[in-house]
Amino acid sequence: MAEALGTRTVSGGSTNGSVGPAIPWQDRPAGSKALVWRHRENPVIPRAPMPGVQGIYNSAVTPFGDGFAAVFRLEKTDRFPRLHVGWSEDALDWQIEPEPVVFSNWTDAPSHYAYDPRVTAIDGEYIVQWCGGHNGPTISLARTKDFRTFERLENAFLPFNRNGVLFPRKINGNYYMLSRPSDNGHTPFGDIYLSESPNLVHWGRHRFVMGKGGDQVGQWWQRTKIGAGPVPIETPEGWVMIYHGVIDTCNGFVYSMGVAILDLDEPWRVLYRTNQHVLTPEAPYEVSGHVPNVVFPVAALHDQPTGRLAIYYGAADTCTALAYTNLNELIEFTKANSAVF
Amino acid sequence: MAEALGTRTVSGGSTNGSVGPAIPWQDRPAGSKALVWRHRENPVIPRAPMPGVQGIYNSAVTPFGDGFAAVFRLEKTDRFPRLHVGWSEDALDWQIEPEPVVFSNWTDAPSHYAYDPRVTAIDGEYIVQWCGGHNGPTISLARTKDFRTFERLENAFLPFNRNGVLFPRKINGNYYMLSRPSDNGHTPFGDIYLSESPNLVHWGRHRFVMGKGGDQVGQWWQRTKIGAGPVPIETPEGWVMIYHGVIDTCNGFVYSMGVAILDLDEPWRVLYRTNQHVLTPEAPYEVSGHVPNVVFPVAALHDQPTGRLAIYYGAADTCTALAYTNLNELIEFTKANSAVF
Amino acid sequence: MAEALGTRTVSGGSTNGSVGPAIPWQDRPAGSKALVWRHRENPVIPRAPMPGVQGIYNSAVTPFGDGFAAVFRLEKTDRFPRLHVGWSEDALDWQIEPEPVVFSNWTDAPSHYAYDPRVTAIDGEYIVQWCGGHNGPTISLARTKDFRTFERLENAFLPFNRNGVLFPRKINGNYYMLSRPSDNGHTPFGDIYLSESPNLVHWGRHRFVMGKGGDQVGQWWQRTKIGAGPVPIETPEGWVMIYHGVIDTCNGFVYSMGVAILDLDEPWRVLYRTNQHVLTPEAPYEVSGHVPNVVFPVAALHDQPTGRLAIYYGAADTCTALAYTNLNELIEFTKANSAVF
Amino acid sequence: MAEALGTRTVSGGSTNGSVGPAIPWQDRPAGSKALVWRHRENPVIPRAPMPGVQGIYNSAVTPFGDGFAAVFRLEKTDRFPRLHVGWSEDALDWQIEPEPVVFSNWTDAPSHYAYDPRVTAIDGEYIVQWCGGHNGPTISLARTKDFRTFERLENAFLPFNRNGVLFPRKINGNYYMLSRPSDNGHTPFGDIYLSESPNLVHWGRHRFVMGKGGDQVGQWWQRTKIGAGPVPIETPEGWVMIYHGVIDTCNGFVYSMGVAILDLDEPWRVLYRTNQHVLTPEAPYEVSGHVPNVVFPVAALHDQPTGRLAIYYGAADTCTALAYTNLNELIEFTKANSAVF
Amino acid sequence: MAEALGTRTVSGGSTNGSVGPAIPWQDRPAGSKALVWRHRENPVIPRAPMPGVQGIYNSAVTPFGDGFAAVFRLEKTDRFPRLHVGWSEDALDWQIEPEPVVFSNWTDAPSHYAYDPRVTAIDGEYIVQWCGGHNGPTISLARTKDFRTFERLENAFLPFNRNGVLFPRKINGNYYMLSRPSDNGHTPFGDIYLSESPNLVHWGRHRFVMGKGGDQVGQWWQRTKIGAGPVPIETPEGWVMIYHGVIDTCNGFVYSMGVAILDLDEPWRVLYRTNQHVLTPEAPYEVSGHVPNVVFPVAALHDQPTGRLAIYYGAADTCTALAYTNLNELIEFTKANSAVF
Amino acid sequence: MAEALGTRTVSGGSTNGSVGPAIPWQDRPAGSKALVWRHRENPVIPRAPMPGVQGIYNSAVTPFGDGFAAVFRLEKTDRFPRLHVGWSEDALDWQIEPEPVVFSNWTDAPSHYAYDPRVTAIDGEYIVQWCGGHNGPTISLARTKDFRTFERLENAFLPFNRNGVLFPRKINGNYYMLSRPSDNGHTPFGDIYLSESPNLVHWGRHRFVMGKGGDQVGQWWQRTKIGAGPVPIETPEGWVMIYHGVIDTCNGFVYSMGVAILDLDEPWRVLYRTNQHVLTPEAPYEVSGHVPNVVFPVAALHDQPTGRLAIYYGAADTCTALAYTNLNELIEFTKANSAVF
Repeated sequence: MAEALGTRTVSGGSTNGSVGPAIPWQDRPAGSKALVWRHRENPVIPRAPMPGVQGIYNSAVTPFGDGFAAVFRLEKTDRFPRLHVGWSEDALDWQIEPEPVVFSNWTDAPSHYAYDPRVTAIDGEYIVQWCGGHNGPTISLARTKDFRTFERLENAFLPFNRNGVLFPRKINGNYYMLSRPSDNGHTPFGDIYLSESPNLVHWGRHRFVMGKGGDQVGQWWQRTKIGAGPVPIETPEGWVMIYHGVIDTCNGFVYSMGVAILDLDEPWRVLYRTNQHVLTPEAPYEVSGHVPNVVFPVAALHDQPTGRLAIYYGAADTCTALAYTNLNELIEFTKANSAVF
Repeated sequence: MAEALGTRTVSGGSTNGSVGPAIPWQDRPAGSKALVWRHRENPVIPRAPMPGVQGIYNSAVTPFGDGFAAVFRLEKTDRFPRLHVGWSEDALDWQIEPEPVVFSNWTDAPSHYAYDPRVTAIDGEYIVQWCGGHNGPTISLARTKDFRTFERLENAFLPFNRNGVLFPRKINGNYYMLSRPSDNGHTPFGDIYLSESPNLVHWGRHRFVMGKGGDQVGQWWQRTKIGAGPVPIETPEGWVMIYHGVIDTCNGFVYSMGVAILDLDEPWRVLYRTNQHVLTPEAPYEVSGHVPNVVFPVAALHDQPTGRLAIYYGAADTCTALAYTNLNELIEFTKANSAVF
Repeated sequence: MAEALGTRTVSGGSTNGSVGPAIPWQDRPAGSKALVWRHRENPVIPRAPMPGVQGIYNSAVTPFGDGFAAVFRLEKTDRFPRLHVGWSEDALDWQIEPEPVVFSNWTDAPSHYAYDPRVTAIDGEYIVQWCGGHNGPTISLARTKDFRTFERLENAFLPFNRNGVLFPRKINGNYYMLSRPSDNGHTPFGDIYLSESPNLVHWGRHRFVMGKGGDQVGQWWQRTKIGAGPVPIETPEGWVMIYHGVIDTCNGFVYSMGVAILDLDEPWRVLYRTNQHVLTPEAPYEVSGHVPNVVFPVAALHDQPTGRLAIYYGAADTCTALAYTNLNELIEFTKANSAVF
Repeated sequence: MAEALGTRTVSGGSTNGSVGPAIPWQDRPAGSKALVWRHRENPVIPRAPMPGVQGIYNSAVTPFGDGFAAVFRLEKTDRFPRLHVGWSEDALDWQIEPEPVVFSNWTDAPSHYAYDPRVTAIDGEYIVQWCGGHNGPTISLARTKDFRTFERLENAFLPFNRNGVLFPRKINGNYYMLSRPSDNGHTPFGDIYLSESPNLVHWGRHRFVMGKGGDQVGQWWQRTKIGAGPVPIETPEGWVMIYHGVIDTCNGFVYSMGVAILDLDEPWRVLYRTNQHVLTPEAPYEVSGHVPNVVFPVAALHDQPTGRLAIYYGAADTCTALAYTNLNELIEFTKANSAVF
Repeated sequence: MAEALGTRTVSGGSTNGSVGPAIPWQDRPAGSKALVWRHRENPVIPRAPMPGVQGIYNSAVTPFGDGFAAVFRLEKTDRFPRLHVGWSEDALDWQIEPEPVVFSNWTDAPSHYAYDPRVTAIDGEYIVQWCGGHNGPTISLARTKDFRTFERLENAFLPFNRNGVLFPRKINGNYYMLSRPSDNGHTPFGDIYLSESPNLVHWGRHRFVMGKGGDQVGQWWQRTKIGAGPVPIETPEGWVMIYHGVIDTCNGFVYSMGVAILDLDEPWRVLYRTNQHVLTPEAPYEVSGHVPNVVFPVAALHDQPTGRLAIYYGAADTCTALAYTNLNELIEFTKANSAVF
Repeated sequence: MAEALGTRTVSGGSTNGSVGPAIPWQDRPAGSKALVWRHRENPVIPRAPMPGVQGIYNSAVTPFGDGFAAVFRLEKTDRFPRLHVGWSEDALDWQIEPEPVVFSNWTDAPSHYAYDPRVTAIDGEYIVQWCGGHNGPTISLARTKDFRTFERLENAFLPFNRNGVLFPRKINGNYYMLSRPSDNGHTPFGDIYLSESPNLVHWGRHRFVMGKGGDQVGQWWQRTKIGAGPVPIETPEGWVMIYHGVIDTCNGFVYSMGVAILDLDEPWRVLYRTNQHVLTPEAPYEVSGHVPNVVFPVAALHDQPTGRLAIYYGAADTCTALAYTNLNELIEFTKANSAVF
C-alpha cells in the first residue's frame, strides 16, 4: 500500500536526487486536518528499549546504502549520554550497537559526554555533529563513510554552544553551520547563528540568523530559546529549517516544533518563520518522562517524488518518536503563517 | 433525571434570585464521600479542542439568556493567550468563536495578551476582568451586555497584578475587587487584597484580605501563593470565595483549590478559611499537561434552590474541567476545618 | 553677596509665584563648566549627625513660613527607617525633631517603616508621600498644614510600589502622582507611571510614562531602573522631572541623576529626556557609605527670578547632600541632549 | 506458591537471624532480566488512599511481632507532613492509624512537621529517625518498643540536615548514623556523611562517606545530590546501602535508586558504588504526581534464607510502591558495576 | 598614664579572676558620648602589613603569660585563609609567625582553609575554634598550651557551619559552644544555636538561642543573619555575648556589632539583646576594603577591676581594628535598649 | 634621570627589537620590596578627566612612531562604552580624541558598544581587539596603520566572549588569539582558551589553556574567573601572559593581577602560573569607584635593554593607572611561586 511506496528519491542526508530506500510513512489520519501527525505506533524507540538502557532520544537518522543508519543519543542507567550507531531497513525497526562510537583522533578523555547528534551527508561522506564536552559544551564534529570508523575533527567553536547543524552542501564554496550559543547550564535564552568555514576546521563570518521570541503575537511559544533541528532541506523556496522553540512556564520549559525558510544563497536571511508551533507536547510519551513536555526534532527524511517528510524527534528526553507531514504543505503553511522578527 | 433539573435560580454572574438555565450537574458518585467530585466526562474542553488551538483553560462561564456565555482563555498553536467568547445551552457543549474578542476603546497595541478572565454580572451588565499587559501584567476590565460588543475600561491597578475578581454587587455604594499583587515573572509569593471604587475607574482604600501560608498546620498546601478564583457567592454566612493555593516542590508549583468565607459588609474580614485543599491534582488531565499539577478554579455556577455548585477550573494549563459540590456542605466544611491566619 | 539673594519666588513645594525665603546657593566654581555642581560643604547632613543616629538621607525639603521645613528619612543605629520633621531658616542648618512623626489615623502597627519621603505643597496644605509598609512596600500619604500634626490618608496603591511623587497642582481637576511599580525586594527593574485621582483616595487611569533603558546609546546609565525624584517643576517648557537612573554592575547598583520634561497638560507624555546622567557618584561621600555609589535626588528648591535650583539628594544611603544648577540651563541641556524611548 | 514462602529470617529492622514473618514477594517477571523489578499491583498505597488523605509516601516498614509495623509520612489535604503508624500482616495491606504519632517529651510546638521517616530495630527497641523542624529541618529521633508510645530523643544534629539513617547495630560500641547536610530549601547539592554517638544524644567524629557525582561516566545520574535510603543491610561483603541519586534537568529533579557497599568495621569507607541507577522513574505513578519523576527508597525487608529483598519507595511524592530484587544479585551487580569517587 | 594601667585581672580567654597583663586602652574621646569608641590609631594591623601578606582580620587575641597571644586569620597575596600565631606584650604591636599553624593529627589535606578563629582559655589550656573545610565549611577545633604545638580535635559538627564560639568554662559539667548553621555559599540567612558536649568530641542537645531579625523595629540592622563574636564574658547579669548582625542592601551585606546577655546557667535563654547596633561601618578602613562595610568582632579583652573592654574586630575583610567600651555601661545599655524576639 | 632613559627597544605592540620611544618609568620606591609598584602620580587618567567624560579605563597603549598611541575605553556621562584614540609623547600625558573611533565596514548599528580594547602590532600594522556587541558580547577586530582610519574585520567568535588578546606574531604560520568564553551577563565563571586562524577571519583548533581556580592553595584569588590582559610578551622563557583573576565576595567581585608563562611554540601549554596575585586593589582609586575593588591589566610596555615593564590597568572601572616591574624579576617570581592546575 501507499505507505511502502515513498521511495526513489530520498534526502535527509543523502545526496539530493539519488534513489534511496523507502522512508517511513503513514497517511494523515482520516478526518484529520493536522499539518503534522504522529506515527500511530509511537514511540518508535520506547522507554528502556534494551536491557540496561534507560532511553534513546534526540537522535539522527540518515539514508545509507539500501537502508538507513542512525547516530543515537543513548543513555544507559548511569544516564551518561553517548553516541551509538544503529541500522535499519525501514527506519522504524532498529538494530542498535551495544557499544558507543569510538572516534579515532579523540583528544578528550574517553569519558566525555556526547549528546543530541545530527548527521549531514555531504560530498560523499557523513559529518556527525553533536554537543560534546570541551571544558563546557560545544559543537563537536566527526566524519565517516561507513558508520563503522569515525575520524574526529576539531570542535567547531569555543564553548558554550549547542544544536550545531551543518548544511548538506557547500554554498559558494564554503561550509555553513547553524548553532545556538549557550551558557554552561540549562540556558534560559538562546538564538540561532550561522558560521562559515573553508575547511571544517576554521570558522568565521558569524551571522545572527534569528532570535527567540518575546511578548508579541507569534512569539510566545518560542519566547525562551530556539535551536535548529534536522539538517535543512533544500527547496526552490529556500532552505526549510525545522527547529524547536521553548516557552518557560512556572513548572519548567515546554519544547515545541516550528519551521523557518532561509534564503538559498544567503542562508542567514530568514524569509519565513511560523508564528505558531506545528507540533507541541500532547501525547502521553511527550508530556511525561524524565523531562516532561519536550518535542525535540533532530532529523528528517524526505521523499522527493511525493513530498513526504518523516520527522524524528526526541520525546520527554526519554524516547524517540516520529511524525509525518508533506513538505509542500509545510512550506505553504509556513509562508501563510509567518512572522519574521 | 435529577441531573437535568438543577434550574430555576442560578447565580454565578446572573442576578441573584432570578430564574436561569439548568446548570450542569452530576450526583456525587455512589460510595464516595468526597466534598468536591469531578465531572465524569472531564475535561469538558479537552486538549487541542479545535484545529489550530492548543488549549482552552482558566476561563469564565456565566448564565446568559436561556443558556450560558463564556469568556475563554484560548491559546492557538502560537501560545499567545487571548479571550474568545463561547455559547452553550447546557454549559457543557460549547460553541466557541474562532476570533478573539475585539474591544472598543482598546488603547494598547492589538497584540497584547489577555489571560485568566473572570466575568461578573452586576447592575444589568457584565464586567469582564482579566490579566492584561500594560508594560507588565495587571488587571484589565471591560463591560458588555451581549457578549458581542465589549467596551474596554481603564486598567484597575498599576502593574504588577493578577487574579482580579469583582464582587457581584456594590457594597455600601462602592464596587469591590479582589486581586493579587505580583511581580513581573512567575511570582513565588502572593497574597489577596481588596480595593474599592466609586466608578470602576479610580480604585483605593486597599485592604489586605489574607496571605499565603507558612510552616504551620493548615498552611502548607498554600504556602507559596494564593489567588481568588470564581466571583464570590453571597450567602447568609458571608461571601464564599473559592481560591487557589500553591505549594512549591522541588519539581515546581502545585495548584490546589481552597475556600474562604468573607464578611458580607466588610469583605476584607476573613471569617473562615479551609486549613486544607478541597481539590488537588490527581486526575490524569490535572497531573500532566503543559504545566503539570494545576487545578485552577475560575468560575462557579450556583443553583440556589438545590445548593448545587458547578465549579469550572483550568487543568494543567491545558484544558478545562468541571467539579461539583453542594454549597451548604462546602460552607459547613469550611467552618468546621478553618484556620484563619 | 549673591549667594544670599536667591529669594523672592520659591517653589519646590510652595505655591508657585509666592514670595518665599532665600534658597541655598553657591555659584558655579570658577573655571567649571559643570551643569550641576556640588555644595562645597557637602554633605549638608553628615554621616552620624546626632547621637544614636546613623544617617539621614533621601529626604524632602520645602519652603515653609519664613524658612523651610523638611521631612527626613532618619535611621537610628537600629537602622529602622522613620520620618522626622526638621526646621531651618536657610535650608542648610537643620533642627531635627528627635522623635519620629506621629500620624493620626494610622491604621498599621506603630512599628511600620517609612522611607524616601516627598512633600508637595498643594491647595494650601502639604501632602507627604513616602514608601510605607502594607504587607509589602507601597505609597503612603498624609496631609499637614503645620508639620506638627499629620493626618494619614489611605495608601494610594496596592503593593508593591516605590517613589511616589505628587504633582504640585491639579491638572484638569484631578490630582496626579508618579510612581514606580516594584517587587518585594531590591527590584532589578522599574519604570515610571502616572495615576489620576479625584480625591487623593481612589486612583486610576494609570499611564506608562517612561521606562528604564537598555543597550542603546543614552540608555546605559539608567538601564536597570528609574524613579521620579523631586516634585516636578512647572515651566513653560513643561514639567521638569528630575529622576534617578540605575545601572547594575558586577559589584552592585549605581544611582545617578537625570532629567525629563513632561507635557504640561498631558504629563504622561515625555517631551525630552537626558541621554546621560547629570550627576553621578564621584565624591567620597557618594562612592563610599552603607550603599556605595548612590546619588538619589528627592527634593528641589527653585528661585524663580534667578532660575537657581538647589537639589537635595541622598548620598550612599548614608548622608544628605546638595547640588546646584540653573533651571534654564538644565532645560536647555535636556532639550539638547535628549533621547526619548 | 513461591510468593508466600519468603519467611523465616527477616531483617530490615528486626534482629538479624531471628525468625520473622514472610516478606512480600513476586518472582522476576518471565523473560525479564531486570535486576530490580516492580510489584505488579503497584502502588501498594495509592494516591488518596483514605478519605481526607492526599498521599502516603517516603515511609518506613519493619517486621514487628508476627507481622509488620510501619511509620508513614502521611499528608492530609492540608499537605502538612506528619508521621502515622500502620499495621499489616503481609506488609502489603495496611491498617493505618488515623491520628498522627504523639511523642512524649516533645519540646517543639505540636504543629511541627515530620517527614521521610526511617525505623531501625536495635537492642530490643525501635529507633525512629525523621526529618523534623527545629528552626530549619534536621534529624529528629524517637524510641519505641510497641509503636504505640514513642519517647522523643534530642535532635541528633544542628540544622540543616535530611535523610538520617541509623545503623542496625553498634559498631565498636558506638551508634552510627548516616545523614545528608542540606540547606533550608530544596537544596541543589548534597553528600552522605557518617556520625558517631556513645549515647544517641551527643554526636561527633563526623566522616564524609561519599559525594554527589559530576561530569564523569558513572556519575551523571547522581550528579545533583544523594541521600541514604533504607537501614543498611549487614552482609559478609559489607553494609549494603541503598540510596537515592538525583540529576537536575531543565524541568526539575529526577530521583533514582542506586547501591553502595560500605566497610563492615569502618562504615565510612566505600567499597563499591553503582555507576548507574538500578531503578529510575518509568512507571506512570513514578513519572506523574505531585513531584514527577521521583523514586525514593526508604525501607527494605530482607529474607535471609532466600536472599529476597523487598524495597519500599515513595513514588512522585504521591504514593508508596514496592520493588523486588535478590540481595546476592544486587551485591554482585554493585561489585561488577562500581565506580567509587 | 591611664591607658597603660588597665591591668590586674584580665579575661577574654584567661582564667577569670587571675592577674594578667594590661589590656590596651584609650579613654573615651573628650566630648564623645559614644558607647563604643575606636582606637585612635586604627587599624591596629593595617592593610598589607607584611611583605606578601594582603590582610589580617577576623582574628582571636588572648592573654598569655606576661603578655598576649593571638591566632590570626592571615591571607597572603594568594588570598588563601590560614591561621598564624602572633605574640605581643601590649596586644597592639604584634610579632606574627610567618608560617601558618601546623596541627598534629590533621586529617584533612594540608591545603584546607582555616578562617575566623576564636580562642577560649579553659581548664588550663586553650581551645582554638575556627571555620575549617570538611567537604564544606564547619567548626574545627584544636587544643594548645603554648601556642607552639597544636593538637587537632574532631570537627564539632557536620557541615555547614560557621562562627563556632566555645564558652570559657563548663556549665553543669558540660562544654557549650555557640554556632551558626549555614549553607555552602555566602549564606543569606543564619541564626545562633547552642550545643552541648561531655568531651569536646560528641555534641548534642542542640538549642536554638536567637534568630536573625525581620521587619520590626530593633531588627533591621540584623535582619539577614547573625553570628557570635568573642568568647562570652561571665558577669553577674549573665553571659555577655557580643555578636555581629548583618543587613543586606542592594549593594551587598553590611556587618555591624550588637550585644546580647544570656542566662548564666541556661545559656540558651536570651535575657537581653540590643535593638540597635553598637558599632557600624563608618571609618574609612571599615567602609572600603575587599569586602566593604564590615565590622566583625571576634575577640575581647576584659579588665575586671576597671570594667574596661577592648574589642578586636575585622574591618572590611581587610584589616584588624580595635574598639573600647566599659563593660558595665555596655550591660546597662543592652538592658535599656533591648528587644528579645 | 634614570626614569627618562628606558628607551631603545620597546615592545608591547611594536615590532620586537626595534628602537622605540622611552617608556614611562619610576624606580621601585626606596625600601620597598614590592614585585610590582604603582606609579606615584596614579591615576594617570583620573576620574572624570574631561568635561562630560565619566571615566577612561581598561584601555590599550602601544608604541607608535616617536611616541605612543592608545585606544581607550571612554565613557561619557551616559555610561555608554566606546573606543577613542589617544596620542602621547611619554605615554603619561595623553591627547584624547573627543570623537569615538569610526570603523569602515561597520556592519552593526552605529550605537553598538565597544569596551576593553587591546592593540597588537603585527606584520607592520595594528590589530585592535575589543568586546563588541553582536546580539551578545563577543570579540570584534579591526586593523589600522595610522590610528586614524580603521578597517573593521569580522568578529572572531560567536557570542558570548570577552577578553580577546591576539599574539604579536604568527606561530607556525597562523595567528593565535586568547579569549574567555562567557555568558550574557556578569558571568560568574570563566577560563582562558586559545584559537587559531590562517587569515584573521576563520578561527578553529580551539584549545583550553588554563582555568579559574578553586578551593586549593594558590587558587582562591582567581577562583571565580580569569581573563588575559596585555598582549603576551615573548621571552626566552616563553610567552609572559599577565592576566586578571577574580574572587567573588559577599559584596561583589575583586579583580587582581597575576602572571602565567606559556610555551613559545605551543602557547596552549602553561609552564608557570603565579599562585598569588601580584597586584590587588589597595589604593583609594582601586578600592572605591563605580565598580569597587578592580585592578584590570590591559596593556604593557616593555623596554628590552633594561627589562623595565610598565603595565596599564583599569582601576575600579573608573580610571586608568600604571604600575611598574622588571620583566626578569617577574619571570623569576612566577617560576618560583607557580601552581599550574
